[in-house]
Parts: sequence; structure tokens; C-alpha cells
Amino acid sequence: MTAMSYRPADIVSPYLLFLGDIEDSVSAKMARAVVIWRPEKAVGQLRMTERTVSVGIEDVSIEDAVARGARTLVIGVANSGGKLPAHWRDVICQAISHGMDIASGMHQRLTAIEGVPELAREHGVTLHDIRHNHPPLEVGTGEPRSGTRVLTVGTDCSLGKMFSSLALQRGLEQAGLNAHFRATGQCGVLIAGEGVAIDAVIADFISGAVEWLSPACDDQQWDIIEGQGSLFHPAYAGVSLGLLHGAQPDYLVMCHELGRPHMRHLPNRPMPEMAACIEANLAAARVTNPAVQLAGFSINTSQVDEATARRELEALSQRFGVPATDPVRFGIAPLVAGLTGAKQ
Amino acid sequence: MTAMSYRPADIVSPYLLFLGDIEDSVSAKMARAVVIWRPEKAVGQLRMTERTVSVGIEDVSIEDAVARGARTLVIGVANSGGKLPAHWRDVICQAISHGMDIASGMHQRLTAIEGVPELAREHGVTLHDIRHNHPPLEVGTGEPRSGTRVLTVGTDCSLGKMFSSLALQRGLEQAGLNAHFRATGQCGVLIAGEGVAIDAVIADFISGAVEWLSPACDDQQWDIIEGQGSLFHPAYAGVSLGLLHGAQPDYLVMCHELGRPHMRHLPNRPMPEMAACIEANLAAARVTNPAVQLAGFSINTSQVDEATARRELEALSQRFGVPATDPVRFGIAPLVAGLTGAKQ
Repeated sequence: MTAMSYRPADIVSPYLLFLGDIEDSVSAKMARAVVIWRPEKAVGQLRMTERTVSVGIEDVSIEDAVARGARTLVIGVANSGGKLPAHWRDVICQAISHGMDIASGMHQRLTAIEGVPELAREHGVTLHDIRHNHPPLEVGTGEPRSGTRVLTVGTDCSLGKMFSSLALQRGLEQAGLNAHFRATGQCGVLIAGEGVAIDAVIADFISGAVEWLSPACDDQQWDIIEGQGSLFHPAYAGVSLGLLHGAQPDYLVMCHELGRPHMRHLPNRPMPEMAACIEANLAAARVTNPAVQLAGFSINTSQVDEATARRELEALSQRFGVPATDPVRFGIAPLVAGLTGAKQ
Repeated sequence: MTAMSYRPADIVSPYLLFLGDIEDSVSAKMARAVVIWRPEKAVGQLRMTERTVSVGIEDVSIEDAVARGARTLVIGVANSGGKLPAHWRDVICQAISHGMDIASGMHQRLTAIEGVPELAREHGVTLHDIRHNHPPLEVGTGEPRSGTRVLTVGTDCSLGKMFSSLALQRGLEQAGLNAHFRATGQCGVLIAGEGVAIDAVIADFISGAVEWLSPACDDQQWDIIEGQGSLFHPAYAGVSLGLLHGAQPDYLVMCHELGRPHMRHLPNRPMPEMAACIEANLAAARVTNPAVQLAGFSINTSQVDEATARRELEALSQRFGVPATDPVRFGIAPLVAGLTGAKQ
């Protein structure tokens, strides 16, 4: 199998987005990613309780979804540890019994749930374990590659690296450039239809997988590589560092959420200080690209009012001498302008 | 399965150490580890050509090894990428046909070699894939744990972190302390009979696996955790950082080889500067243990004469204010004294 010929199996849309009974809004990232970036692909959402997080589309039953043409039940949730709660099994089995494929971004494989592979065979449906679908991997080399690479990094996980990467890709393309989105997480792979869930590869191959994902290319091509985790997250920093080395980025975009009280899932752990976080990322990135630069900030400002958001973005921009924006609130244009200006 | 009840399947000795046809001495680390740390377990070595690296014990055929009571053919090689060369298959099959178990530390599973699982079943022998033998894993938390932890880190891979860790454990034990060796690589696991090959776990679980491997313990207990790779190696730094965070070491021992010309397998990549390497490791380690200290240096000086070695060690010790030794040439005592002195 050559790098170029590899693609994950097609996940057939339309989708029914399954949210289980999660009450933590951030965990719904897989469903939300579809609603934001591929809204035409979802017929509705399926929630187990009234308190379950909503991604703002219509609630539909499995029966109604099938009537609307839904072909795949997408597990719309990415939880820490990647285990499928045992009490979701009945819904998964129901969907299979109604002839739907299932797509999951969990570490735990659909095929490892008791009875599920047998039921899938019986009904002739496909089980997509998005995180486990990747090409044969090699260890990284760190050898310089042609092309221009932008990597989104962050102070923490789950604060907008995928969103920022997709927005940047779209913005660069709209500016007339040849820009590709390189997905490194299960949501990104679902959106892009290709990529590698980096956190699910064998540890020795993290950077090698990213070298494969964003190979040498035309110097006019931009690869926008989706970052993962944070160098300061005690669970995931290994993934973040391997990704950083494998990406050998020319530009880093630092992602952050204003007002986040502590590192995700770790109430005792304060967020890293911004200047230290930038310096740690640049220092590590220099191992494979000594010319790496900070290109700007992509900040989630949803917790503050607009005036505060503008003031904070301006302060960051002044302090570090690069553009800062909230791509949801104010658009991605400042970062696109900064990147295309820097490249000239 | 609880943490405490987990143990890899026993690999039955005596061993025949198989070196294939490798000509790179460093790749023979698995065989050499047995010869140094468990010499009583090896009946001899098996080399495919005269130019193959020797680990200094008698060459014996499979037939002779069986006559001497050998029970397991140990693949004595750890190569980059972890693939078993296809032309080694015949020797593996011969050993199986003579009733020997096989133990391998490669990423590629013995069970993935064509015909090998069937042959093993036919002859009633066991295939040990050391790298793939680990407990169910969780993501890391970074929560502080009781006990005292020492981690060996390095400027590069394959320069003595396992040797230094085993020597430290033995030295601390001889000084009357309760010291455990925590194996994180396939050689260490083979020597210790337990542990986790960290480079073979799924990337999301690197630090969680190390938290499992060295759990909270008595404050009088020392855990000597075997390091892997280097924060400056473009292929393996993700593993090194996750291991560093999961270990939450109180003390780092920096390992290095005097005169190494470039990073392993990467002729274009210079070795990192020592002060920068120390600072990067301390800075990263502070994420999970703000009190971490450099305890000293374990230096492989085999490429220089004794006078030069002594001079270089003294210079390092003076420059950084901690002990420096070559545990092979001059013994581990200076590091043991430094650690036990620091703890008082």
C-alpha cells in the first residue's frame, strides 16, 4: 500500500449523530464538527435523555432517521480514554438492526463490543473504527521536506485546534492558494474523509505517521496540520511533541480559550502561562525546523463579551507581535493575511 | 486485571540468543542485555554469517542448543522500526520445529509471520511478543504520587539508559535501600520479567502506562525508571516526553556517549548540546514534578582512553555540580552516593 493510495473506507452519509447521555458539552466535538463543517450530511441527532448535550439540530429516533435516508450512526462523542459506555450498546445494536453502518472515533473498537460484530454481519452493515484506520507506519526521520506547513498547537486539548485548522484551510483557499487540511484526530478524519488519528498509533510511530500524512510537496502548497493536545497536558504531551516534530512546521498557530479555569479534566492543574507555552512549542519545533515562527493566535472568546474579546485579542497581538483572532466571532482573515504576508 | 496482578507470561530459560545477520553492534542490545545482566540464562549465540555481530559467548547451532537444554530462542536484536527481516523466518521455523519457544521484542508480531503461528501450534510451543504484552491502559492524570522516583534520560537513544538504570537499582539495593527497576523497553522487560514496552503502547496512553508501571508507594521506596529515546530525537521524542511526564521523577540521571558523532541512524543530525538537553528535560519534567532535580551523569566513555574519560567526567561534574561516572568503567557508586546524599 503506497502513501498516496491510502484512504479510509468511505463512511456513507447521511448520518444520524448519536450523543449517548453525555452532559459535558466539549465531549460532543465529533457531532459538533459534522454540524459545523458538513451540516448537509446529518439528518438529526439522537440523545438518550433530555439532559444530554444537544448540538442544535433536530432530535430524531432511529426509525425516523432511517425514514429520512440515514445510512450511518455516527458516535458523536470523543471522551477521555476512548471507552464506549456499556449502556450505549443497545442503541448501537438497534441501529444495526435497522440496517445502519456505525462509525466510532473511540479507542475501544466497535468490533470489541460483545455481540456487535456478529449482529453487523447478520445485517450486512459496516463497522468503522475511525481511530484504527491507518496505513502501515514507519518511524520518523526528521529530514527536511519541501512545501509550507502550518501546525495548530494549544495551551490545552479541546479548545479549537481542528476548527482553527479547517478555518485556515478554507481561508487560504479563498485567498487563491493551494491549501490542504491534514486531519490528525477522529473528528478531522470524519470531516476530511482521510487522515490519521495520531493519538491511536503505536507510540514509536507518532512522528513518522505525521511525516507520512504531510509528505514533501510543491513549494506553493500549504498543508494545514491539525494539532492535538498540549505540551503541558500530563496525559497527552507525548502525542503533541511527536506531532510537532513530525509536522516540522514553518508556522505555528497558538490556540487557547479565554477564561478556561484549569487543564481539561484536571481541576488541580492550572493552565500554562502563554509566553512559556509559546517558547516551549517553538523550542521543540526547532528540532525539525529551525526556521519555525509563531504566525498568530486563534482564541476561543465565547466566555467573554465582545468588547473584552477585542481588548484581549489586541493585547495578545501587541505583546507577541502577530495577529490574534477568534475565528468563530471575528473570522480567520487576520491569520490568513498574516500567513500570506509572512510568506511573501 | 489489577495493576499488581499483571505479569507478562514467563519466558522459560535457558535461552539461545539469535543475532540474525546484523552488523551494527548497537542493534544487538537485547542479546547483550541478557549476557550482561542474566548470563546464567544463555547457552550460546546463533549468528547467520561470520560477519554478524557477536555478544562474546559461544556460537551454537539450534541442535546443540537443544542438547544443552535451551528452551527459548530469543531474538537478540532491536532494530529501528521493529520489523523482522523476512530471511530470518527459516531459523525461527527451525527452532520451533526443534520444540523451542520464541521470544521477540520487535513491533512486528511473531504471530504475523506467515506460517509461524500454525507451526507453533503444531509443535506446542509458545510465541512471546514482549512488546505487545501489557495491561489494559488508562490515560495519565499527572496527580502526585508518593515514593521516590529516578528516571534515566538521554541525549539520544541506545546509549545506556537501561544499563544505567539496572546498575543504579543494584547499587541502591547494595546500599541497603528498597529499590525497584521499572522496565520500559523490550530488553528491560526480558531482564526484569515484568514491565511495559512503552514505545509499543497506543500514543494516548504513554504517560498513563508509566503511571501504572510505577504506582504510589512507600516513601522509603526507590523506583528506578528506565528512560527511552531523547527529547531531541525526531522519531522518538513523543515517547520520551510521555514517559517523562508519567514518571514524574524526583531525580533525572542524564545518559550520554562521549564522541557519538550524530543522532542514531541520522547522519545529518548533530547531537544536542548538553546544557540545552538538561534544561529541556528539567523544564518538561516540572510539568508533573516541580521539584525535579538533575542527580548526575551516566556516561559511556568506551570510545576514549581512561585518562580522557576521567577528565571529561570531572569536567561535566564541575560544570553542572553533580556526580558523573561511567558505570561500566568506574562503577555506579558516585551516582548512588549522590542520590542517597541528596535524599537525606
